[in-house]
Amino acid sequence: MSGFVPSPVRIVGTGLIGGSLGLALRRAGVTVQVEDVSPGTCALAVELGVGTVAGPEDPAPALVVVAAPPDVAAHLIADALTRWPEAIVTDVASVKDIVLRGVTSLVDEEALTRYVGGHPMAGREVSGVIAARADLFQGRPFVVVPHETTRPGAVSMLKGIATEIGSVPVVLSAREHDTAVAHVSHVPQVLSSLLATTLLDPAEVALGLAGQGLRDTTRIADSDPRLWVEILGANAAAVSEVLTSVRSRLDDVLEALDSMRGDPDPAVGSRRALASLIADGNRGVRRIPGKHGGSVDAFATVVVLVPDRPGELARLLTEIGQIGVNLEDLRLEHEIGRAVGLAHVSIVAGREDLLTRELDARGWTVAEA
Amino acid sequence: MSGFVPSPVRIVGTGLIGGSLGLALRRAGVTVQVEDVSPGTCALAVELGVGTVAGPEDPAPALVVVAAPPDVAAHLIADALTRWPEAIVTDVASVKDIVLRGVTSLVDEEALTRYVGGHPMAGREVSGVIAARADLFQGRPFVVVPHETTRPGAVSMLKGIATEIGSVPVVLSAREHDTAVAHVSHVPQVLSSLLATTLLDPAEVALGLAGQGLRDTTRIADSDPRLWVEILGANAAAVSEVLTSVRSRLDDVLEALDSMRGDPDPAVGSRRALASLIADGNRGVRRIPGKHGGSVDAFATVVVLVPDRPGELARLLTEIGQIGVNLEDLRLEHEIGRAVGLAHVSIVAGREDLLTRELDARGWTVAEA
Repeated sequence: MSGFVPSPVRIVGTGLIGGSLGLALRRAGVTVQVEDVSPGTCALAVELGVGTVAGPEDPAPALVVVAAPPDVAAHLIADALTRWPEAIVTDVASVKDIVLRGVTSLVDEEALTRYVGGHPMAGREVSGVIAARADLFQGRPFVVVPHETTRPGAVSMLKGIATEIGSVPVVLSAREHDTAVAHVSHVPQVLSSLLATTLLDPAEVALGLAGQGLRDTTRIADSDPRLWVEILGANAAAVSEVLTSVRSRLDDVLEALDSMRGDPDPAVGSRRALASLIADGNRGVRRIPGKHGGSVDAFATVVVLVPDRPGELARLLTEIGQIGVNLEDLRLEHEIGRAVGLAHVSIVAGREDLLTRELDARGWTVAEA
Repeated sequence: MSGFVPSPVRIVGTGLIGGSLGLALRRAGVTVQVEDVSPGTCALAVELGVGTVAGPEDPAPALVVVAAPPDVAAHLIADALTRWPEAIVTDVASVKDIVLRGVTSLVDEEALTRYVGGHPMAGREVSGVIAARADLFQGRPFVVVPHETTRPGAVSMLKGIATEIGSVPVVLSAREHDTAVAHVSHVPQVLSSLLATTLLDPAEVALGLAGQGLRDTTRIADSDPRLWVEILGANAAAVSEVLTSVRSRLDDVLEALDSMRGDPDPAVGSRRALASLIADGNRGVRRIPGKHGGSVDAFATVVVLVPDRPGELARLLTEIGQIGVNLEDLRLEHEIGRAVGLAHVSIVAGREDLLTRELDARGWTVAEA
């Protein structure tokens, strides 16, 4: 265990994130104390091995993690800073500036130096301590969010915790964090939901024409309204800023489309607006880092037809292993009524010719994507 | 071979779609004649087995398929209706109303009765005859688009062709088709591109926080600008209508967010606007039919941790086969820097407890999604 890691750690709020954090910390040998506003939830967390309930004789925590929704986080953080005057206090709220402002308004200068924000970037489509997993944060970014007067020791401590549970610490200010998650999480959620709302209108036969593109773009639209009202409300400024630029560009697109309605020879400017939308989108999507931190260009995709029978995909993957090419990623694409699936096999760029040739020789139908 | 299928079939334009259609039809025993505005492309198509170049002694085609971009389709269709006065003529353009209007303005009433629109809904991220595949249309919808005066025989003929190449014929009017593809394809493309353009601004560290959600929602943003300018321009009216409703809802969202900026106790109406966005999105995404035409609810997903070593995924799939559960779909999720992947295994609903228990007994780390 790293010297940075404090013990005991007190987790206030044992939902999915608090629960997973407790499991991960205990696995790392840290003593974990738990509490929750709901006695039932707390008892379940103890039963699941998240931590134990501290008695009056137990040592005070060195670190308190408030794992509660953004709307109550500031009050619970302020409370913890007062209850344990020696402890470092952090939280896991998915928006940081609103929480920092809340804490700043509630505590004195000394207490504020002991607060450092945190955001372990993991989550699942389920919630509650019952879904908690020790490996939830494995390989995921853990944003450490100091403010102007945070003690340096608090930052080191939280970075140590992040490393200990297998995640990758990233230090950002509250505003930098909020802008970043607006871009990579909150705005994608809004646009995916907006897109999905347009599917309420069309006839069923129209939806029968849907392919993989629509499925991919709307997958995250199936998410919890209550949770997202909290998140979007708490990060309203940053989300609104990005969405305002989206609206402005959408206006350009609509203007271009309206000038093209029924016009066989539309103005060059209209075509240019659409072309630059798609081209800028190309450049934007290519900025997303790929697996293992590599850029997307480092990988090639080979598409293989896989008969829809048990064992076929396993056989394909076994043979890819025999060929000696390491699978970087895999997506299986199935279409309505089709007896074959398409396995999109991502590999390190430069190996695709070898893989294609070898799979072909083994009787697979292959096409480079 | 079905009695509906005509022979010979003439394919005008041997790109990805025309080429794949030729391969599929020849596999079904149909005589295929090819031509292309580019002699080199045509020669390559012949070499690849798409069809042969007809000489003066060859029989006239019973069906002509114009497989050219929307902007030239109408002229080529009119030309074909004149060149072969007995033939049925169809096309594969991905927008139909603009093509129908073009043809109507170019030919006489008799010729118009021999035209029936078509849209085999398949495509790949690549183009050109070199990427052509006989199975491209397998299991995909094939939209047959008659107009008011299309001969019934022409509709039967095209449905026969669709069935013969393994796709699923769906009969829609030109406007129904254009509205449907605006919803399931064109608007998703615009929104995915819009989202991806917002990724040009943030710092690199922000993009390092990206997870699977952002990757899914922006995957189709990496598409061809030239092609999409044609498609969006040709379906401007239908796309514009849906995007106008998106903009109106986006305005509601922005208004709600702006009223919530820095307000710890925002108006109930603002929260309601955000909640209904997400909830309506939930209902929208659930309207998309699942694999094999089943509804999404018919499947359950089990998430399994897969160590990032060659052979592990193959072993997992082999063991799933041994357990006797049929894999309906598979998505492998990899995150930056992580030594394990998450395999999202979709199976028929009701088998997830069995699968979870059995995989667990075999030492896999499993969690229901």
